[in-house]
Amino acid sequence: MPKPPKKPLPVVLLTDFGPHSPYVGQMKLVLERAAPGARVIDLAHDLPAHDLAAAVLVLSGAQRYLPEPCVLCAVVDPGVGSARRIVAARFANGVRVLCPGNGLLAAFAPRGRPQALHAVTNKRHFLPEVSPVFHGRDVFAPVAAALAQGLDPKVLGPRVDLSSLAPAPWPAPKFSKRDGTVMAGQVVHTDRFGNLVTNVPAYEVRARKLREARIGRLVFPLREHYAEVAVAKPVALVGSYGFLELALRERSAAARTGAKAGTKVILR
Amino acid sequence: MPKPPKKPLPVVLLTDFGPHSPYVGQMKLVLERAAPGARVIDLAHDLPAHDLAAAVLVLSGAQRYLPEPCVLCAVVDPGVGSARRIVAARFANGVRVLCPGNGLLAAFAPRGRPQALHAVTNKRHFLPEVSPVFHGRDVFAPVAAALAQGLDPKVLGPRVDLSSLAPAPWPAPKFSKRDGTVMAGQVVHTDRFGNLVTNVPAYEVRARKLREARIGRLVFPLREHYAEVAVAKPVALVGSYGFLELALRERSAAARTGAKAGTKVILR
Amino acid sequence: MPKPPKKPLPVVLLTDFGPHSPYVGQMKLVLERAAPGARVIDLAHDLPAHDLAAAVLVLSGAQRYLPEPCVLCAVVDPGVGSARRIVAARFANGVRVLCPGNGLLAAFAPRGRPQALHAVTNKRHFLPEVSPVFHGRDVFAPVAAALAQGLDPKVLGPRVDLSSLAPAPWPAPKFSKRDGTVMAGQVVHTDRFGNLVTNVPAYEVRARKLREARIGRLVFPLREHYAEVAVAKPVALVGSYGFLELALRERSAAARTGAKAGTKVILR
Repeated sequence: MPKPPKKPLPVVLLTDFGPHSPYVGQMKLVLERAAPGARVIDLAHDLPAHDLAAAVLVLSGAQRYLPEPCVLCAVVDPGVGSARRIVAARFANGVRVLCPGNGLLAAFAPRGRPQALHAVTNKRHFLPEVSPVFHGRDVFAPVAAALAQGLDPKVLGPRVDLSSLAPAPWPAPKFSKRDGTVMAGQVVHTDRFGNLVTNVPAYEVRARKLREARIGRLVFPLREHYAEVAVAKPVALVGSYGFLELALRERSAAARTGAKAGTKVILR
Repeated sequence: MPKPPKKPLPVVLLTDFGPHSPYVGQMKLVLERAAPGARVIDLAHDLPAHDLAAAVLVLSGAQRYLPEPCVLCAVVDPGVGSARRIVAARFANGVRVLCPGNGLLAAFAPRGRPQALHAVTNKRHFLPEVSPVFHGRDVFAPVAAALAQGLDPKVLGPRVDLSSLAPAPWPAPKFSKRDGTVMAGQVVHTDRFGNLVTNVPAYEVRARKLREARIGRLVFPLREHYAEVAVAKPVALVGSYGFLELALRERSAAARTGAKAGTKVILR
Repeated sequence: MPKPPKKPLPVVLLTDFGPHSPYVGQMKLVLERAAPGARVIDLAHDLPAHDLAAAVLVLSGAQRYLPEPCVLCAVVDPGVGSARRIVAARFANGVRVLCPGNGLLAAFAPRGRPQALHAVTNKRHFLPEVSPVFHGRDVFAPVAAALAQGLDPKVLGPRVDLSSLAPAPWPAPKFSKRDGTVMAGQVVHTDRFGNLVTNVPAYEVRARKLREARIGRLVFPLREHYAEVAVAKPVALVGSYGFLELALRERSAAARTGAKAGTKVILR
């Protein structure tokens, strides 16, 4: 008696193709053909094009909410068409990650090392014709569908050493040598409200008992939420991405400070 | 013998988080974890941020098309982080509504009073850690998942009196005392085509046999559809939201009249 | 014994209503009510309003990835409210197409003639009340739901002759009489990167062994992918829509050339 087909794992999609663009649409068509009935959950498609920092932030913020098991397919891929690698990882919690080897996987570092990490080279799981400008549809979507149906990542290609992949798209924050309580971080992303997201993760904010952040001479006191300061006043808080953010309540901190990705932030 | 798990109700989502933003994405991840397999239907995510009037219009226009039963989860919530209430209502047609108590529920007034109306205070159904800046993910999504799985709203918190909630974000149109046929309404929203949506519901248009609307000296004759007037000519009609809209065919009525939310509209 | 209800076919949606707009949302509510559990796949909703050329490009590029069978419902409909026809087609591969008779069906010409082609006039399958400004919700969505549940297109209205429908929104490229190797095509669409999509399909590029395209005096050599030319250099390639595209690597070809829909392109 034939076993009933197992339900495919949910596929979580992250791209910089734009909301409801036909590029996302074509990926979904390929997923439905290759893994009929697979649930597709849109994590985000509104990322600035080719913005690896924004992608890592979104992945960092989202990973604790991922269904387990699932397949996370992240296509923010400025190197498409070049010789950059695509990798498939499987973590102990059942999450499979399929992404370019361009630093995106750094978002999963807090999970520890993947149980399996393989380059994606086996063309058997690609579409028969692969456009050099659209791997999202021709490589990522069909491979994600195969992973959703239970394919072992090791079938996709040779083992890869984690340390051989590109690092995170920003440096870790640095600590002063004197007492370890002064940190130098940086802005890594500006959100649509003009809030400045930094490279300082929530656990550093707590562990170091940080009290304020500073850009130039403007001090952002650390608070739990916006409502604790008056309109237009500066405030620092741990935002939805799980990183420290600097904001002016109901105003644009980016416009006021002129800060952008790379701008230095001093923390105490 | 264990009963097979019941299929969760569909969850209809309305937010002002932006199309395919990671905020919507995180809510969907939480929904999938808490109510695996629940169907999520995006009503809209492109609302102007914090625009309660736009949200009530969308809810008003959509409610006659809602699947019954379902859970409607509306997160347009300028008061997030403050002491504003979150409420859960259940209506006679099986629709559950989860929203802030900030006037959104006014969209459901034509349905009559809810059978049940409760404040959402029972933390058992929240995520273990609640960010003060993102109740959409940490409160609304898990509570919507619980409602989708059949949870009775009364488990969520104390009963609430409908009259204690914030009223609709705009006043009802007013009628002149003389003969009841001259109405003063107002613009409540400008859509992306520059059409001006008013606070005059379709049933008033019909009951009062309105024939024209006026902003300043510009007269918009009431018609069934745009094609009944020449390009660039003014026209008033009942639009997709179920309210009277003023438009210039293939032009922007907002640009031409300078009208915006609050601008007075005279109707006859 | 009653037969268990068959699973509805997946419904693929294409509109110009804007990403996550309430217009798309209302269509999805109607689909869920009329065909509960039907999978809805968003092909695209970010098309420029009323842009038939963009819609035909997206349909052309997507059709080889469509699940079979499925219902493709395309609502790019500048003539809504006028006497234009709506048609339902069924192709040999099981794909049903529901769209206005305004040239969109031309995208399916490479599939050959439909097995069935009918005007959609039978009001039994519409919503009881049809807004003259929103056929997407009141006509397309409920009819798509009926097709997804297996309704035969012939029930929807009288047979239609394919040649009576509006032609494609652009002319076919022309060949010079002398040797058949010089083609005059045209730009039909500018994408969000400023790339210029032409009316020259991939199979012509291959069959005619084209080597370059020219707008004015700027020559775009034909390549496989962007990385084959230096940044800011012109390049022509077959893009995601399945048509020849002209681009400047990492720059806007539209801004550089001033070209727009209708601009002549010479190919050799």
